[in-house]
Amino acid sequence: MIAAPLDPVPLDAADPLGAHRDRFVGAETPLVYFDGNSLGRPLRVTGPRLAAFVEQEWGGLLIRGWDEAWMALPQQVGDDLGRICLGAGPGRTIIGDSTTVLLYKALRAAVAARPGRTEIVVDSDNFPTDRYVARAVAQECGLTLRWIEVDTAAGVTEQQLADVVGPRTAVVLLSHVAYRSAWLADAAALTALTHEAGALVVWDLSHAAGAVELALDATGVDLAVGCTYKYLNGGPGAPAYLYAGAHLIEQLDQPIQGWIGHAEPFLMGPDWTPAPDLRRMLSGTPPILGMLAMQDMLALLDEVGLPAVRAKSIALTEYAIALAEDLLAPLGVALASPRDPARRGGHVTFTHPAMREVVAALWRRDVLPDYRDPHGLRLGLSPLSTSFAEVAAGVAAVAEELQRG
Amino acid sequence: MIAAPLDPVPLDAADPLGAHRDRFVGAETPLVYFDGNSLGRPLRVTGPRLAAFVEQEWGGLLIRGWDEAWMALPQQVGDDLGRICLGAGPGRTIIGDSTTVLLYKALRAAVAARPGRTEIVVDSDNFPTDRYVARAVAQECGLTLRWIEVDTAAGVTEQQLADVVGPRTAVVLLSHVAYRSAWLADAAALTALTHEAGALVVWDLSHAAGAVELALDATGVDLAVGCTYKYLNGGPGAPAYLYAGAHLIEQLDQPIQGWIGHAEPFLMGPDWTPAPDLRRMLSGTPPILGMLAMQDMLALLDEVGLPAVRAKSIALTEYAIALAEDLLAPLGVALASPRDPARRGGHVTFTHPAMREVVAALWRRDVLPDYRDPHGLRLGLSPLSTSFAEVAAGVAAVAEELQRG
Repeated sequence: MIAAPLDPVPLDAADPLGAHRDRFVGAETPLVYFDGNSLGRPLRVTGPRLAAFVEQEWGGLLIRGWDEAWMALPQQVGDDLGRICLGAGPGRTIIGDSTTVLLYKALRAAVAARPGRTEIVVDSDNFPTDRYVARAVAQECGLTLRWIEVDTAAGVTEQQLADVVGPRTAVVLLSHVAYRSAWLADAAALTALTHEAGALVVWDLSHAAGAVELALDATGVDLAVGCTYKYLNGGPGAPAYLYAGAHLIEQLDQPIQGWIGHAEPFLMGPDWTPAPDLRRMLSGTPPILGMLAMQDMLALLDEVGLPAVRAKSIALTEYAIALAEDLLAPLGVALASPRDPARRGGHVTFTHPAMREVVAALWRRDVLPDYRDPHGLRLGLSPLSTSFAEVAAGVAAVAEELQRG
Repeated sequence: MIAAPLDPVPLDAADPLGAHRDRFVGAETPLVYFDGNSLGRPLRVTGPRLAAFVEQEWGGLLIRGWDEAWMALPQQVGDDLGRICLGAGPGRTIIGDSTTVLLYKALRAAVAARPGRTEIVVDSDNFPTDRYVARAVAQECGLTLRWIEVDTAAGVTEQQLADVVGPRTAVVLLSHVAYRSAWLADAAALTALTHEAGALVVWDLSHAAGAVELALDATGVDLAVGCTYKYLNGGPGAPAYLYAGAHLIEQLDQPIQGWIGHAEPFLMGPDWTPAPDLRRMLSGTPPILGMLAMQDMLALLDEVGLPAVRAKSIALTEYAIALAEDLLAPLGVALASPRDPARRGGHVTFTHPAMREVVAALWRRDVLPDYRDPHGLRLGLSPLSTSFAEVAAGVAAVAEELQRG
């Protein structure tokens, strides 16, 4: 047993959000889940909701569903997501393709909006897909990648960005929360620096939205994308979202021009005319089934409010760090995330040379963290579905496996 | 009542596939549904299956689902679709993004595979999105669109294609079944003509797959895409599929390079290396929830077999035409689809100057066909969920509305 002041029992008892955990499928099992930042648990309401959708909406409305309910869904759910999680006013967020496809379109649109500029800035620790897409877009558009080399236990600083942005920069692509270190970027400062150079910024919010408070409108962000299956609990492969600042929407020009991005989708005329609003960034028929689960989670996030979610998230990561200092540091484990919670997102990473084997052993005993090179144990602590007891059990299991190994 | 030989009762009684209709949600209602070629009805098993997936797979496996079940799903479902519906061997079909996004990637890959060639051939009656995407790809790649002007009541003929393909042609983009006329293209002849010119062909199968028999491998097709929410009953906005001939897969190079198309998705290394197989055409995290409903329909199609489905489809469209000749031709209605069932897909279109108003009136009385310019009443007769009685009731309703109007 872990003794006070690290005893989880009083922490869970005092947690104002603790009761919400029971709303998630599997909360009653002893499994320790530290991967809610990769795939969030489903809410218990979601399964019956999907079955009812099939019976009543799809099966009942049939093709009429498009006119009566679904056509507006990418913008309606986008508006809800923007209001509840992103600090975005209506009309600036839309649900669409995968994160990769939306990122591709966002980068292409950003490059097109800065003709004559020759560089895309990206950091070395950005999520692999972000780096791949940035490279592919740079290559096909004849631009050069300009790399920011970052410490894998931290993230991009103002000074690092200031050193590389300039009149050649077309776009800066950054993650709001780094997928390994959980480094929480200073979005306001980095966006301002980018704008001073006359460039556009594209933020990847995948590891941020639903766990940290965002203020995209207030920050003057140009473009952002993110996935919905992490802290937004949309389900495996749920569709992603794209945000665009109000100042940019009418200029956005993207290459995948399908019927749903057309100004008049049902006109079916000879030419493609982009929708005047953010729908111009969509391409094919919206994935309606994939948008249902995230609506359930958005309703819960709306009920709780992001400030409370963020407070719980900080409490969970602080607790994990305190436990690790007590139980894991003596075994040679180091923190590979920012110690300052103001600079840290919803997960926390610890390193040890044996972590790859430790994570494999943990999985065999139903403790599910992530392994991330180099030597990283990543604990994703989904604020609404993770208890302090779960954190305590998981960190204790890590200590046991390290002692055993 | 419609008298013999057009009485639907004995036709339904003798229909070997008639019993399957009850497997679909809403089959018990009096609604007449002629839009199964736009959005197929859900199967009754699909709602409970989705609920069970949320509880057991997503909620039970959590992140482990990717390793244990989902990572292979785009290829597994693709293989099933290929075998059951497309005449495609394993490894040649994959489930991915929307039809639009896959079409974009297919066209980009095809253009890249024919460097130095300067034209994309497309027909004037191809589906709007196909024309838009072809135009956008041509524009950004510096190619010219070469149009085949077709009769809206028919489709692309060998002679028409022969007149435009040549050494300048990079790609020919065609629909296997035309969305208005239901013209069933001679895919073997048109593919051979394209290949004689040294070009690649991309077939849009959206209005064909699940209703007509396809033989993509035997025909030597290069690339094909299609949606799954029409005759494959995948649900609103279900993900699309891409087929590539075995001769082409290793050469395919597409611009949206994300983690899931990487040779080693979990390596997360610095460079993007395309998967050696068709996974290279994918980009973002696969939409797992969106692939479940289509699996239910594929199981039914596998049980019944495409030859029987096609026979029922022909019987339904022949019956609709016979009824129209009896009831609608005297009112001035003309057939705008091929009269020869061998040249006709799973829907049938009739024209009359008043059709726009007629379709609006039909919708108000729960008879749901599509209106398609110019003056077209389109009856989509989904073979497994449409009865002869439904066709008779619908055509009689059209006659009533024309007489009333």
